[in-house]
Parts: sequence; C-alpha cells; structure tokens
Amino acid sequence: MADDQSAQEELLDLRNSIDNIDAAMIYILAERFRCTQRVGALKAHHHLPPADPAREEVQVARLRRLAESARLDPEFAEKYLAFVIREVIRHHEKFPRHPVA
Amino acid sequence: MADDQSAQEELLDLRNSIDNIDAAMIYILAERFRCTQRVGALKAHHHLPPADPAREEVQVARLRRLAESARLDPEFAEKYLAFVIREVIRHHEKFPRHPVA
Repeated sequence: MADDQSAQEELLDLRNSIDNIDAAMIYILAERFRCTQRVGALKAHHHLPPADPAREEVQVARLRRLAESARLDPEFAEKYLAFVIREVIRHHEKFPRHPVA
Repeated sequence: MADDQSAQEELLDLRNSIDNIDAAMIYILAERFRCTQRVGALKAHHHLPPADPAREEVQVARLRRLAESARLDPEFAEKYLAFVIREVIRHHEKFPRHPVA
C-alpha cells in the first residue's frame, strides 16, 4: 500500500515534468511557426520556390546527428521534422495570406 | 539584385533561427522520452494500466489553451501531442524492456 502510494507520487512527479516539457514545446513551436510564416512571406514576395529539397536534406542529417548526441532515436528526429514541415505546408494552404505562384 | 541579396540574407537569418529552434526541440524531446520511459517502467513494475484516457483528455485541453495564448493553431498543439504519444507507444513496442501485461 505504501509502495503503491510512493509509485503514484513518482508518477505524478514525472507527469509534472512531462507537462512542463510540453508547455515549453508549444511555446517554442509557436516561435518556429512565426519564423516559417516570415520565410513564406519572403519567398512569396521574392518569387522564390516554396520547397527546398537540398535544405531539407541538410536539416534531416543535422537533426539525426543531434538526436544521437541526445540519445534520442534518430528516426524520431526525422519524423519530427517531417511532421512539422507537413504542418507548415498545411498551414500555408489553409491560410494563404501569401500565396506562392 | 541588391534586393534579392537582402532577401537571401534574411532567409538565411530566419533559417538559422529555425535550426536553433529545431536543435532545442530535439534535446527537449529527448528529455520528454526519458520521462516517459521512467513512467513506462514504473507502470510495468506496479502493474498500472499503460494508457490513461482521462489524463490524455486533460493534456489535450491544457495544450490547446497554451497554444491559444502562444497564438499557435490549437489543432496543431493537439496533433503534436498525438504525434508524440504515438511515438512513445511505438518506442515501447519496439523496445519492450518493461513489457506491460
């Protein structure tokens, strides 16, 4: 019973850390979107191509290296980037304030 | 021509910010995984159920509120959480060091 209570306390403690981490993630993701919105506007204004496969390749390789140094599965780092880029594109399509020709 | 160069410089500047943000994300995600691994081990050890729908509901509502305050699309915050939880589950399945009965 005491053991169960201590487990519940530890679970609560870990969840508090997870909640703090998720809050940090949301605010930092918001800042990332602010950057990509500016990139989108800049590219539209200067008629630059919206996608840049060479840049994405460099990003993937770099994030995989960083994941390894953080002892995080590099596959996950790659999936994270794909997820965020997919959302950036979806967001641009949903709110085409700066449509790219 | 000078205008194009200035645009390229601004693009590079924004990409440097995006790269810094992504690096921060990778390290913070690594820490989140460390927490969920400990949660997984704790639950397995104490025979607690692996999923907790009530907890997830609270997490979603909280992250949506935080997203609104960060002027980030709340839908994206919800997708972020679903993505991370999916990866946690996948990771537990791939590396079942603490299989849950």
